[in-house]
Amino acid sequence: MTHGSGSAGYPACMSGTDQKPGTGGGLSYAQAGVSIEAGDRFVEKIQSSLRRTHGPRVIHSASGFAGLFRLDFNEKLFKRNYREPVLVSCADGVGTKIKLATALNKYDTIGIDLVAMNINDLVVAGAEPLFFLDYIATGELDPAKLADIVKGIADGCVESGAALLGGETAEMPGVYGPGDIDLAGFAVGVVELARATDPERVEPGDVVLGLGSSGVHSNGYSLVNKIVESASLDLGMKYEELGGERTLGAILLEPTRLYADAIVRVQRGYKVKKVITGMAHITGGGLAGNLSRALHSGVDAVLDAGSWPVPPVFPFLQGHGGVSDEEMARVFNMGIGYCCIVRPTFAPSVAKKLDKLGHTVTRLGEIESGDGKVRLRG
Amino acid sequence: MTHGSGSAGYPACMSGTDQKPGTGGGLSYAQAGVSIEAGDRFVEKIQSSLRRTHGPRVIHSASGFAGLFRLDFNEKLFKRNYREPVLVSCADGVGTKIKLATALNKYDTIGIDLVAMNINDLVVAGAEPLFFLDYIATGELDPAKLADIVKGIADGCVESGAALLGGETAEMPGVYGPGDIDLAGFAVGVVELARATDPERVEPGDVVLGLGSSGVHSNGYSLVNKIVESASLDLGMKYEELGGERTLGAILLEPTRLYADAIVRVQRGYKVKKVITGMAHITGGGLAGNLSRALHSGVDAVLDAGSWPVPPVFPFLQGHGGVSDEEMARVFNMGIGYCCIVRPTFAPSVAKKLDKLGHTVTRLGEIESGDGKVRLRG
Repeated sequence: MTHGSGSAGYPACMSGTDQKPGTGGGLSYAQAGVSIEAGDRFVEKIQSSLRRTHGPRVIHSASGFAGLFRLDFNEKLFKRNYREPVLVSCADGVGTKIKLATALNKYDTIGIDLVAMNINDLVVAGAEPLFFLDYIATGELDPAKLADIVKGIADGCVESGAALLGGETAEMPGVYGPGDIDLAGFAVGVVELARATDPERVEPGDVVLGLGSSGVHSNGYSLVNKIVESASLDLGMKYEELGGERTLGAILLEPTRLYADAIVRVQRGYKVKKVITGMAHITGGGLAGNLSRALHSGVDAVLDAGSWPVPPVFPFLQGHGGVSDEEMARVFNMGIGYCCIVRPTFAPSVAKKLDKLGHTVTRLGEIESGDGKVRLRG
Repeated sequence: MTHGSGSAGYPACMSGTDQKPGTGGGLSYAQAGVSIEAGDRFVEKIQSSLRRTHGPRVIHSASGFAGLFRLDFNEKLFKRNYREPVLVSCADGVGTKIKLATALNKYDTIGIDLVAMNINDLVVAGAEPLFFLDYIATGELDPAKLADIVKGIADGCVESGAALLGGETAEMPGVYGPGDIDLAGFAVGVVELARATDPERVEPGDVVLGLGSSGVHSNGYSLVNKIVESASLDLGMKYEELGGERTLGAILLEPTRLYADAIVRVQRGYKVKKVITGMAHITGGGLAGNLSRALHSGVDAVLDAGSWPVPPVFPFLQGHGGVSDEEMARVFNMGIGYCCIVRPTFAPSVAKKLDKLGHTVTRLGEIESGDGKVRLRG
């Protein structure tokens, strides 16, 4: 995490040195397009966002070169000590959904997408989320815009139970245009080795539960943007096919649903280890492409086609883009954002718990003997 | 970590679903500028790079949603079990040094910079590096170019003792131009709470040791690029002022020095906890801006100006850019890439150990009573 010229790392610590713009006739960093003052203002703005994600496990470091997080911590209600702790980590971005945020000039929810893309992957491993870091790159630092992005990241972290431990904001004139932004995120969690998800546990008879998505989530936006452009769709229009209440832009920018909190709660609720035998976060590759990753080579997941509700945004995009069914199923989540493979006796109670936690749950099908594929029937 | 259309996550797992380009008259992902086949080729190419960074603590996950790393592991020679483990994490990029790699069409060392920018920050906290993840974004996926970048990242990880646990490669047409690339990295390490670096430990009389940099490292490249452009410097030229042996481009692209391995070894070599009382990775903000972060408010670091060798690239850039002394010292490392604050009785032996491990060590000065500032004398 750098904290100096040309980039604003946080937790912030610029104290101890005066950072003034260069003076005199020669070249300075400011003339090279890098604003240290804007970086400082941004770092101040985001402090409250960071703080509301910090529990007692975050150790505040004065030097701020890196963020510190206590793995084992004797919290009031339960002692989290791991016998064989396995750290789980992943990196992801929001893809070209950021272009849509830019087009709509609305930046306060794309951070939720960033957290969701990472933390939803993390919990697939059976992990409890610990912390999150972000990387924001832009051509010209706009503190208000970036503070909105970090606010969304903090919202996603709070909802997922992860601390926003730090991040890096890079002002890179010449690599990015003035209004261009890219986002990447990185999540770390921990799982007790014996409780880590293992595809070998999936057995014929297990039930596949699907959790509803909030819409397109954060995959396939290059295709979404292409369809919007080629069909001259109006992001500000309230289309009848989409219910007529929200604009196309608002529907497309709807943040990715966060599944972490619900999944972690459900897993904690069972003393029996093997209630959930497999999970999948449905991203690029679609339902079949991602659910198959939860299977070993001796089983298939057999799903009832049409058993789950498909949000209207998908037929809308398909119709306006003339996209084939196969391409739609391969690029988009088509309404299911997360899957749990569950032992049959526990399926109704897991579904009920997830429903109580605010998720729309559909029984998609069952596991059968097979060769590691996802098959649709009906 | 997503693994599907539009992005290539790794460790790779595309099995179980056929990913064919869209067919028919409508729009497809490929037509939106996203090449899944190029993504697959890239993921294949980098497998060997990843594998050579993986020790026995990496758990190979078939599903590949996230990377798994055992925190406690009974290795042959010593058991790494932490009583109060604190995870240390940071995020950083290489800034606009990537533009130079693009200009020179040489991509096999910029990954070392990426690792160094992160892992050098990590060890400042007293941490042992555990693992690293990367994020590479580009306008058009060029598997050979990206495999070179990942090779450099793996080189840096091997040299730092970190596992390359995963990453995300995003193809984002429209956000990035076809040849444009951005890189971000994330590092995680662990430190026993009692051994974490703490500015409060720094005392008057402690000695400041400076470790030589390899050149500009990865900060200030917006200014470097501006100077190259405004002074019409030739990246292919072997300038006499720079020794006449290497081209300006090669000198500017020289990868950031990795300090992690040496710092971790030196720290392990002392049973006494408080031999090294503070450290600093010299990045944006320069020597004063970063070293001050290692101090508490009751001490100053008093350094002998001119006590360390300044690599010729700095006066060269200053001369051609007409940059003030203050701006140079604030933007660049000026020859010192890392500092250790050491108890005076141990300073000679720490310096000797670092020297044996291949670093150029200079005694820069001492800690005195003060108010948290870095002061130059002489």
